[in-house]
Amino acid sequence: MGAASDLVVGFDADDTLWHNEVIFEQVHERYRALLARFHGAATVDRTLFATEMRNLELYGYGVKGFTLSAIETAIELSAGRIGAAEIQQLIELGREMLAHPVDLLDGVVEALAALAPRHRLVLITKGDLRDQERKLAKSGLAAQFAAVEIVSEKDESTYAAILRRHAIAAERFFMVGNSLKSDILPVLALGGAAAHVPYHLTWAAEQVEEIPRAEGRFFRLKSLHALPAVVAQLG
Amino acid sequence: MGAASDLVVGFDADDTLWHNEVIFEQVHERYRALLARFHGAATVDRTLFATEMRNLELYGYGVKGFTLSAIETAIELSAGRIGAAEIQQLIELGREMLAHPVDLLDGVVEALAALAPRHRLVLITKGDLRDQERKLAKSGLAAQFAAVEIVSEKDESTYAAILRRHAIAAERFFMVGNSLKSDILPVLALGGAAAHVPYHLTWAAEQVEEIPRAEGRFFRLKSLHALPAVVAQLG
Repeated sequence: MGAASDLVVGFDADDTLWHNEVIFEQVHERYRALLARFHGAATVDRTLFATEMRNLELYGYGVKGFTLSAIETAIELSAGRIGAAEIQQLIELGREMLAHPVDLLDGVVEALAALAPRHRLVLITKGDLRDQERKLAKSGLAAQFAAVEIVSEKDESTYAAILRRHAIAAERFFMVGNSLKSDILPVLALGGAAAHVPYHLTWAAEQVEEIPRAEGRFFRLKSLHALPAVVAQLG
Repeated sequence: MGAASDLVVGFDADDTLWHNEVIFEQVHERYRALLARFHGAATVDRTLFATEMRNLELYGYGVKGFTLSAIETAIELSAGRIGAAEIQQLIELGREMLAHPVDLLDGVVEALAALAPRHRLVLITKGDLRDQERKLAKSGLAAQFAAVEIVSEKDESTYAAILRRHAIAAERFFMVGNSLKSDILPVLALGGAAAHVPYHLTWAAEQVEEIPRAEGRFFRLKSLHALPAVVAQLG
Protein backbone atom coordinates (compact mmCIF):
# COMPACT_ATOMS: atom_id res chain seq x y z
CA MET A 1 0.00 0.00 0.00
CA GLY A 2 1.41 3.38 -1.03
CA ALA A 3 1.46 6.66 0.91
CA ALA A 4 -1.62 8.86 1.22
CA SER A 5 -2.48 10.80 -1.92
CA ASP A 6 -4.33 14.10 -2.26
CA LEU A 7 -6.36 12.74 -5.18
CA VAL A 8 -9.98 12.63 -4.03
CA VAL A 9 -12.18 9.97 -5.66
CA GLY A 10 -15.91 10.67 -6.00
CA PHE A 11 -18.40 7.85 -6.56
CA ASP A 12 -21.92 7.90 -7.90
CA ALA A 13 -24.13 5.34 -6.12
CA ASP A 14 -27.13 4.02 -8.15
CA ASP A 15 -25.89 1.73 -10.97
CA THR A 16 -22.27 2.50 -10.07
CA LEU A 17 -22.01 0.85 -6.63
CA TRP A 18 -25.30 -1.05 -6.61
CA HIS A 19 -28.06 -2.12 -9.02
CA ASN A 20 -30.90 0.37 -9.40
CA GLU A 21 -32.19 0.76 -12.96
CA VAL A 22 -32.86 -2.97 -13.13
CA ILE A 23 -35.35 -2.55 -10.26
CA PHE A 24 -37.09 0.29 -12.16
CA GLU A 25 -37.13 -1.92 -15.26
CA GLN A 26 -38.93 -4.72 -13.36
CA VAL A 27 -41.43 -2.18 -12.05
CA HIS A 28 -41.98 -0.82 -15.57
CA GLU A 29 -42.86 -4.34 -16.73
CA ARG A 30 -45.46 -4.73 -14.02
CA TYR A 31 -46.73 -1.22 -14.78
CA ARG A 32 -47.21 -2.04 -18.47
CA ALA A 33 -49.10 -5.21 -17.50
CA LEU A 34 -51.37 -3.22 -15.16
CA LEU A 35 -52.27 -0.77 -17.94
CA ALA A 36 -52.28 -3.27 -20.82
CA ARG A 37 -56.07 -3.22 -21.13
CA PHE A 38 -55.95 0.53 -21.81
CA HIS A 39 -52.81 1.03 -23.93
CA GLY A 40 -49.83 -0.74 -25.49
CA ALA A 41 -46.39 -0.82 -23.87
CA ALA A 42 -44.91 1.92 -26.07
CA THR A 43 -47.65 4.42 -25.21
CA VAL A 44 -47.43 3.55 -21.51
CA ASP A 45 -43.64 4.02 -21.47
CA ARG A 46 -43.77 7.27 -23.44
CA THR A 47 -46.55 8.79 -21.35
CA LEU A 48 -44.99 7.82 -18.03
CA PHE A 49 -41.67 9.32 -19.09
CA ALA A 50 -43.40 12.54 -20.21
CA THR A 51 -45.15 12.78 -16.80
CA GLU A 52 -41.87 12.20 -14.99
CA MET A 53 -40.12 14.92 -16.98
CA ARG A 54 -42.99 17.37 -16.43
CA ASN A 55 -42.89 16.71 -12.67
CA LEU A 56 -39.11 16.59 -12.30
CA GLU A 57 -38.66 20.25 -11.37
CA LEU A 58 -41.28 19.92 -8.60
CA TYR A 59 -40.63 16.37 -7.37
CA GLY A 60 -36.92 15.93 -8.00
CA TYR A 61 -35.40 12.46 -8.49
CA GLY A 62 -36.31 9.35 -6.56
CA VAL A 63 -38.87 6.65 -5.89
CA LYS A 64 -41.57 8.79 -4.25
CA GLY A 65 -41.79 11.17 -7.20
CA PHE A 66 -41.73 8.20 -9.58
CA THR A 67 -44.66 6.60 -7.73
CA LEU A 68 -46.71 9.82 -7.85
CA SER A 69 -45.99 10.17 -11.58
CA ALA A 70 -46.96 6.53 -12.14
CA ILE A 71 -50.31 7.07 -10.39
CA GLU A 72 -50.98 10.26 -12.36
CA THR A 73 -50.13 8.53 -15.66
CA ALA A 74 -52.36 5.55 -14.84
CA ILE A 75 -55.31 7.89 -14.24
CA GLU A 76 -54.57 9.75 -17.48
CA LEU A 77 -54.09 6.64 -19.66
CA SER A 78 -57.20 4.93 -18.28
CA ALA A 79 -59.26 8.14 -18.66
CA GLY A 80 -60.12 7.79 -14.98
CA ARG A 81 -61.23 4.15 -15.24
CA ILE A 82 -58.33 2.76 -13.21
CA GLY A 83 -59.58 1.33 -9.93
CA ALA A 84 -58.54 2.24 -6.38
CA ALA A 85 -57.22 -1.29 -5.84
CA GLU A 86 -54.89 -0.85 -8.82
CA ILE A 87 -53.67 2.50 -7.52
CA GLN A 88 -53.01 0.79 -4.21
CA GLN A 89 -50.89 -1.72 -6.16
CA LEU A 90 -48.80 1.19 -7.49
CA ILE A 91 -48.28 2.47 -3.96
CA GLU A 92 -47.15 -1.03 -2.96
CA LEU A 93 -44.78 -1.14 -5.96
CA GLY A 94 -43.19 2.10 -4.75
CA ARG A 95 -42.81 0.73 -1.26
CA GLU A 96 -41.21 -2.46 -2.61
CA MET A 97 -38.68 -0.34 -4.47
CA LEU A 98 -37.82 1.56 -1.29
CA ALA A 99 -37.51 -1.66 0.71
CA HIS A 100 -35.56 -3.51 -2.00
CA PRO A 101 -32.30 -5.18 -0.93
CA VAL A 102 -29.10 -3.50 -2.07
CA ASP A 103 -27.18 -5.66 -4.57
CA LEU A 104 -23.62 -4.47 -5.06
CA LEU A 105 -22.07 -4.43 -8.51
CA ASP A 106 -19.11 -6.54 -9.45
CA GLY A 107 -15.74 -5.28 -8.17
CA VAL A 108 -17.12 -2.58 -5.87
CA VAL A 109 -16.03 -4.03 -2.54
CA GLU A 110 -12.52 -4.74 -3.84
CA ALA A 111 -12.09 -1.31 -5.47
CA LEU A 112 -13.21 0.62 -2.39
CA ALA A 113 -11.06 -1.51 -0.10
CA ALA A 114 -8.03 -0.86 -2.33
CA LEU A 115 -8.61 2.90 -2.62
CA ALA A 116 -9.89 3.92 0.84
CA PRO A 117 -6.52 3.60 2.64
CA ARG A 118 -4.80 6.05 0.22
CA HIS A 119 -7.56 8.43 -0.94
CA ARG A 120 -10.39 10.48 0.44
CA LEU A 121 -13.51 8.84 -1.04
CA VAL A 122 -16.70 10.91 -1.41
CA LEU A 123 -20.12 9.52 -2.31
CA ILE A 124 -22.15 11.90 -4.50
CA THR A 125 -25.66 10.81 -5.34
CA LYS A 126 -29.09 12.22 -6.15
CA GLY A 127 -32.56 10.95 -5.24
CA ASP A 128 -34.74 10.79 -2.14
CA LEU A 129 -32.67 11.74 0.90
CA ARG A 130 -33.81 8.94 3.20
CA ASP A 131 -33.80 6.33 0.44
CA GLN A 132 -30.19 7.05 -0.50
CA GLU A 133 -29.13 7.04 3.17
CA ARG A 134 -30.89 3.73 3.69
CA LYS A 135 -29.26 2.15 0.64
CA LEU A 136 -25.82 3.31 1.78
CA ALA A 137 -26.44 1.85 5.25
CA LYS A 138 -27.67 -1.46 3.78
CA SER A 139 -24.71 -1.61 1.36
CA GLY A 140 -22.18 -2.00 4.15
CA LEU A 141 -19.95 0.51 2.33
CA ALA A 142 -20.59 3.62 4.47
CA ALA A 143 -17.34 3.32 6.45
CA GLN A 144 -15.25 3.60 3.26
CA PHE A 145 -16.46 7.17 2.56
CA ALA A 146 -15.01 10.27 4.18
CA ALA A 147 -18.08 12.25 3.13
CA VAL A 148 -21.52 11.67 1.65
CA GLU A 149 -23.30 14.27 -0.49
CA ILE A 150 -26.94 13.63 -1.37
CA VAL A 151 -27.90 16.37 -3.81
CA SER A 152 -30.98 17.31 -5.82
CA GLU A 153 -29.12 17.68 -9.15
CA LYS A 154 -25.67 16.71 -10.41
CA ASP A 155 -24.57 19.53 -12.66
CA GLU A 156 -21.48 21.73 -12.84
CA SER A 157 -22.65 24.12 -10.13
CA THR A 158 -23.38 21.24 -7.73
CA TYR A 159 -19.92 19.74 -8.25
CA ALA A 160 -18.29 23.16 -7.93
CA ALA A 161 -20.06 23.70 -4.60
CA ILE A 162 -19.01 20.25 -3.33
CA LEU A 163 -15.36 20.83 -4.32
CA ARG A 164 -15.43 24.23 -2.59
CA ARG A 165 -17.05 22.82 0.55
CA HIS A 166 -14.45 20.07 0.87
CA ALA A 167 -11.53 22.25 -0.27
CA ILE A 168 -10.73 19.96 -3.22
CA ALA A 169 -8.90 21.37 -6.26
CA ALA A 170 -10.74 20.32 -9.43
CA GLU A 171 -7.54 18.90 -10.96
CA ARG A 172 -7.19 16.62 -7.91
CA PHE A 173 -10.74 15.26 -8.21
CA PHE A 174 -11.62 12.02 -9.99
CA MET A 175 -15.29 11.09 -10.40
CA VAL A 176 -16.54 7.56 -11.11
CA GLY A 177 -20.05 6.84 -12.36
CA ASN A 178 -22.38 5.28 -14.90
CA SER A 179 -24.02 8.46 -16.19
CA LEU A 180 -22.14 10.57 -18.73
CA LYS A 181 -24.60 13.39 -18.11
CA SER A 182 -24.52 13.45 -14.29
CA ASP A 183 -21.14 11.96 -13.36
CA ILE A 184 -18.70 12.61 -16.20
CA LEU A 185 -19.39 15.69 -18.34
CA PRO A 186 -19.84 18.24 -15.51
CA VAL A 187 -16.65 17.05 -13.75
CA LEU A 188 -14.58 17.15 -16.97
CA ALA A 189 -15.95 20.66 -17.63
CA LEU A 190 -14.63 21.79 -14.25
CA GLY A 191 -11.15 20.41 -15.02
CA GLY A 192 -11.42 17.18 -13.06
CA ALA A 193 -10.91 13.61 -14.27
CA ALA A 194 -13.62 10.99 -14.64
CA ALA A 195 -14.18 7.30 -15.28
CA HIS A 196 -17.34 6.15 -17.01
CA VAL A 197 -18.44 2.68 -15.95
CA PRO A 198 -21.49 1.98 -18.12
CA TYR A 199 -24.44 0.09 -16.66
CA HIS A 200 -26.36 -2.17 -19.03
CA LEU A 201 -29.49 0.00 -18.65
CA THR A 202 -29.63 3.80 -18.78
CA TRP A 203 -32.70 5.83 -17.80
CA ALA A 204 -33.79 7.96 -20.77
CA ALA A 205 -33.36 11.17 -18.73
CA GLU A 206 -29.65 10.38 -18.29
CA GLN A 207 -28.92 9.71 -21.95
CA VAL A 208 -26.67 12.14 -23.83
CA GLU A 209 -25.24 12.14 -27.35
CA GLU A 210 -22.10 13.99 -26.42
CA ILE A 211 -18.82 12.06 -26.37
CA PRO A 212 -16.52 13.30 -23.62
CA ARG A 213 -13.24 14.74 -24.90
CA ALA A 214 -10.56 15.24 -22.29
CA GLU A 215 -7.16 13.83 -23.18
CA GLY A 216 -5.71 11.89 -20.23
CA ARG A 217 -8.60 12.83 -17.94
CA PHE A 218 -11.36 10.56 -19.25
CA PHE A 219 -11.50 6.79 -18.91
CA ARG A 220 -14.05 4.12 -19.78
CA LEU A 221 -14.05 1.03 -17.57
CA LYS A 222 -15.99 -2.23 -17.82
CA SER A 223 -16.29 -2.57 -14.05
CA LEU A 224 -14.78 -1.16 -10.87
CA HIS A 225 -12.21 -3.98 -10.92
CA ALA A 226 -10.13 -1.81 -13.25
CA LEU A 227 -10.43 1.35 -11.14
CA PRO A 228 -7.54 1.03 -8.65
CA ALA A 229 -5.00 0.71 -11.48
CA VAL A 230 -6.35 3.84 -13.20
CA VAL A 231 -6.34 5.82 -9.97
CA ALA A 232 -2.77 4.71 -9.21
CA GLN A 233 -1.72 6.09 -12.59
CA LEU A 234 -3.20 9.52 -11.71
CA GLY A 235 -1.46 9.53 -8.34
CA MET B 1 -22.11 46.16 14.90
CA GLY B 2 -19.74 44.23 17.17
CA ALA B 3 -16.76 42.08 16.25
CA ALA B 4 -17.12 38.59 14.83
CA SER B 5 -18.13 35.97 17.38
CA ASP B 6 -17.45 32.22 17.34
CA LEU B 7 -21.03 31.51 18.45
CA VAL B 8 -22.70 29.65 15.58
CA VAL B 9 -26.46 30.07 15.27
CA GLY B 10 -28.50 27.24 13.75
CA PHE B 11 -31.98 27.82 12.36
CA ASP B 12 -34.79 25.42 11.65
CA ALA B 13 -36.74 26.42 8.51
CA ASP B 14 -40.41 25.26 8.37
CA ASP B 15 -42.51 27.23 10.90
CA THR B 16 -39.37 28.98 12.19
CA LEU B 17 -38.41 31.08 9.17
CA TRP B 18 -41.54 30.59 7.05
CA HIS B 19 -45.09 29.31 7.40
CA ASN B 20 -45.54 25.59 6.73
CA GLU B 21 -47.94 23.82 9.09
CA VAL B 22 -50.67 26.28 8.14
CA ILE B 23 -50.44 25.01 4.55
CA PHE B 24 -50.79 21.41 5.75
CA GLU B 25 -53.75 22.50 7.88
CA GLN B 26 -55.53 23.96 4.82
CA VAL B 27 -54.82 20.75 2.91
CA HIS B 28 -56.20 18.67 5.80
CA GLU B 29 -59.46 20.64 5.62
CA ARG B 30 -59.84 19.92 1.94
CA TYR B 31 -58.91 16.30 2.57
CA ARG B 32 -61.62 15.93 5.23
CA ALA B 33 -64.16 17.44 2.81
CA LEU B 34 -63.12 15.01 0.07
CA LEU B 35 -63.65 12.02 2.39
CA ALA B 36 -66.68 13.39 4.29
CA ARG B 37 -69.10 11.01 2.56
CA PHE B 38 -67.15 8.04 3.91
CA HIS B 39 -66.03 9.13 7.43
CA GLY B 40 -66.11 11.96 9.94
CA ALA B 41 -63.21 14.40 10.38
CA ALA B 42 -61.82 12.74 13.52
CA THR B 43 -61.53 9.33 11.84
CA VAL B 44 -60.00 10.87 8.72
CA ASP B 45 -57.40 12.77 10.78
CA ARG B 46 -56.57 9.79 12.97
CA THR B 47 -56.24 7.34 10.07
CA LEU B 48 -54.14 9.69 7.95
CA PHE B 49 -51.78 10.29 10.87
CA ALA B 50 -51.50 6.54 11.50
CA THR B 51 -50.65 5.96 7.83
CA GLU B 52 -48.04 8.74 7.91
CA MET B 53 -46.39 7.30 11.01
CA ARG B 54 -46.41 3.77 9.53
CA ASN B 55 -44.76 5.07 6.34
CA LEU B 56 -42.32 7.50 7.99
CA GLU B 57 -39.39 5.10 8.16
CA LEU B 58 -39.72 4.32 4.45
CA TYR B 59 -40.82 7.72 3.08
CA GLY B 60 -39.16 10.17 5.45
CA TYR B 61 -40.55 13.68 5.96
CA GLY B 62 -41.97 15.94 3.28
CA VAL B 63 -44.78 16.63 0.85
CA LYS B 64 -44.28 13.66 -1.50
CA GLY B 65 -44.53 11.10 1.31
CA PHE B 66 -47.52 12.98 2.73
CA THR B 67 -49.28 12.83 -0.66
CA LEU B 68 -48.66 9.09 -1.00
CA SER B 69 -49.97 8.51 2.53
CA ALA B 70 -53.04 10.65 1.78
CA ILE B 71 -53.83 8.57 -1.33
CA GLU B 72 -53.37 5.31 0.58
CA THR B 73 -55.60 6.51 3.43
CA ALA B 74 -58.31 7.66 1.00
CA ILE B 75 -58.39 4.20 -0.59
CA GLU B 76 -58.53 2.57 2.84
CA LEU B 77 -61.23 4.83 4.31
CA SER B 78 -63.41 4.58 1.20
CA ALA B 79 -62.94 0.79 1.07
CA GLY B 80 -61.75 1.25 -2.51
CA ARG B 81 -64.74 3.36 -3.59
CA ILE B 82 -62.74 6.58 -4.02
CA GLY B 83 -62.63 7.57 -7.68
CA ALA B 84 -59.60 8.17 -9.89
CA ALA B 85 -60.63 11.83 -10.33
CA GLU B 86 -60.51 12.31 -6.56
CA ILE B 87 -57.09 10.67 -6.35
CA GLN B 88 -55.98 13.03 -9.10
CA GLN B 89 -57.20 15.87 -6.84
CA LEU B 90 -54.92 14.61 -4.08
CA ILE B 91 -51.98 14.62 -6.49
CA GLU B 92 -52.87 18.21 -7.41
CA LEU B 93 -53.07 19.13 -3.71
CA GLY B 94 -49.54 17.79 -3.22
CA ARG B 95 -48.30 19.76 -6.20
CA GLU B 96 -49.93 22.93 -4.87
CA MET B 97 -48.10 22.44 -1.59
CA LEU B 98 -44.78 22.10 -3.41
CA ALA B 99 -45.48 25.17 -5.53
CA HIS B 100 -46.82 27.24 -2.62
CA PRO B 101 -45.29 30.71 -2.12
CA VAL B 102 -42.93 31.09 0.83
CA ASP B 103 -44.36 33.43 3.48
CA LEU B 104 -41.75 34.55 5.97
CA LEU B 105 -42.59 34.78 9.67
CA ASP B 106 -42.54 38.00 11.58
CA GLY B 107 -39.08 39.29 12.53
CA VAL B 108 -37.10 36.82 10.41
CA VAL B 109 -35.56 39.25 7.94
CA GLU B 110 -34.52 41.64 10.71
CA ALA B 111 -33.08 38.93 12.97
CA LEU B 112 -30.98 37.35 10.20
CA ALA B 113 -29.76 40.76 9.01
CA ALA B 114 -28.70 41.63 12.57
CA LEU B 115 -26.95 38.30 13.23
CA ALA B 116 -25.31 37.41 9.89
CA PRO B 117 -22.51 40.03 10.09
CA ARG B 118 -21.26 38.68 13.45
CA HIS B 119 -22.12 34.98 13.45
CA ARG B 120 -21.89 31.94 11.23
CA LEU B 121 -25.54 31.05 10.52
CA VAL B 122 -26.43 27.46 9.56
CA LEU B 123 -29.82 26.32 8.25
CA ILE B 124 -30.76 22.82 9.47
CA THR B 125 -33.99 21.39 8.12
CA LYS B 126 -35.63 18.09 7.28
CA GLY B 127 -38.03 17.19 4.48
CA ASP B 128 -37.84 16.60 0.74
CA LEU B 129 -34.42 17.69 -0.54
CA ARG B 130 -35.58 19.63 -3.59
CA ASP B 131 -38.59 21.14 -1.80
CA GLN B 132 -36.46 22.56 1.01
CA GLU B 133 -33.90 23.91 -1.47
CA ARG B 134 -36.68 25.54 -3.49
CA LYS B 135 -38.23 27.15 -0.40
CA LEU B 136 -34.86 28.53 0.66
CA ALA B 137 -34.29 29.96 -2.83
CA LYS B 138 -37.78 31.51 -2.88
CA SER B 139 -37.34 32.93 0.63
CA GLY B 140 -34.59 35.31 -0.43
CA LEU B 141 -32.67 34.32 2.73
CA ALA B 142 -30.09 31.95 1.23
CA ALA B 143 -27.26 34.51 1.22
CA GLN B 144 -27.50 34.91 5.01
CA PHE B 145 -26.46 31.30 5.65
CA ALA B 146 -22.88 30.07 5.69
CA ALA B 147 -24.11 26.49 5.33
CA VAL B 148 -27.31 24.58 4.65
CA GLU B 149 -27.95 21.09 6.01
CA ILE B 150 -31.00 19.22 4.72
CA VAL B 151 -31.23 16.05 6.77
CA SER B 152 -33.57 13.07 7.01
CA GLU B 153 -33.96 13.27 10.81
CA LYS B 154 -33.10 15.84 13.48
CA ASP B 155 -31.92 13.87 16.47
CA GLU B 156 -28.82 13.98 18.67
CA SER B 157 -26.69 11.94 16.27
CA THR B 158 -27.60 14.21 13.33
CA TYR B 159 -26.67 17.36 15.27
CA ALA B 160 -23.47 15.73 16.53
CA ALA B 161 -22.49 14.90 12.94
CA ILE B 162 -23.25 18.46 11.78
CA LEU B 163 -21.20 20.00 14.60
CA ARG B 164 -18.31 17.66 13.79
CA ARG B 165 -18.49 18.38 10.06
CA HIS B 166 -18.40 22.15 10.63
CA ALA B 167 -15.91 21.99 13.52
CA ILE B 168 -18.32 23.66 15.94
CA ALA B 169 -17.95 23.06 19.69
CA ALA B 170 -21.37 22.16 21.15
CA GLU B 171 -21.06 24.89 23.82
CA ARG B 172 -20.62 27.47 21.02
CA PHE B 173 -23.76 26.34 19.15
CA PHE B 174 -27.16 27.98 19.56
CA MET B 175 -30.16 26.42 17.80
CA VAL B 176 -33.40 28.28 17.05
CA GLY B 177 -36.62 26.51 16.12
CA ASN B 178 -40.29 25.82 16.70
CA SER B 179 -40.05 22.10 17.54
CA LEU B 180 -38.99 21.10 21.03
CA LYS B 181 -38.47 17.56 19.78
CA SER B 182 -36.39 18.31 16.67
CA ASP B 183 -34.74 21.67 17.38
CA ILE B 184 -34.35 22.07 21.12
CA LEU B 185 -34.03 18.84 23.15
CA PRO B 186 -31.30 17.14 21.06
CA VAL B 187 -29.17 20.32 21.04
CA LEU B 188 -29.51 20.85 24.80
CA ALA B 189 -28.60 17.18 25.33
CA LEU B 190 -25.36 17.75 23.42
CA GLY B 191 -24.48 20.75 25.61
CA GLY B 192 -25.56 23.49 23.21
CA ALA B 193 -28.00 26.33 23.79
CA ALA B 194 -31.41 26.68 22.15
CA ALA B 195 -34.30 29.07 21.69
CA HIS B 196 -37.81 27.73 21.25
CA VAL B 197 -40.01 29.99 19.12
CA PRO B 198 -43.42 28.28 19.20
CA TYR B 199 -45.58 28.29 16.07
CA HIS B 200 -49.33 28.40 16.60
CA LEU B 201 -49.74 24.93 15.07
CA THR B 202 -47.60 21.86 15.84
CA TRP B 203 -47.76 18.63 13.82
CA ALA B 204 -48.70 15.75 16.12
CA ALA B 205 -45.45 13.91 15.30
CA GLU B 206 -43.43 16.83 16.71
CA GLN B 207 -45.31 17.09 20.02
CA VAL B 208 -43.47 16.18 23.23
CA GLU B 209 -44.45 16.37 26.88
CA GLU B 210 -40.93 16.97 28.12
CA ILE B 211 -40.06 20.44 29.39
CA PRO B 212 -36.48 21.41 28.57
CA ARG B 213 -34.29 22.02 31.63
CA ALA B 214 -31.00 23.71 30.95
CA GLU B 215 -30.25 26.68 33.18
CA GLY B 216 -28.99 29.63 31.13
CA ARG B 217 -28.97 27.62 27.89
CA PHE B 218 -32.69 27.47 27.09
CA PHE B 219 -34.86 30.38 25.98
CA ARG B 220 -38.45 30.75 24.87
CA LEU B 221 -39.17 33.58 22.44
CA LYS B 222 -42.44 34.91 20.99
CA SER B 223 -40.86 35.73 17.64
CA LEU B 224 -37.43 36.15 16.07
CA HIS B 225 -37.58 39.88 16.90
CA ALA B 226 -36.24 38.98 20.36
CA LEU B 227 -33.43 36.77 19.05
CA PRO B 228 -30.56 39.22 18.43
CA ALA B 229 -30.68 40.44 22.06
CA VAL B 230 -30.53 36.86 23.39
CA VAL B 231 -27.65 35.96 21.08
CA ALA B 232 -25.76 39.12 22.10
CA GLN B 233 -26.05 37.99 25.72
CA LEU B 234 -24.44 34.63 24.89
CA GLY B 235 -21.58 36.30 23.02
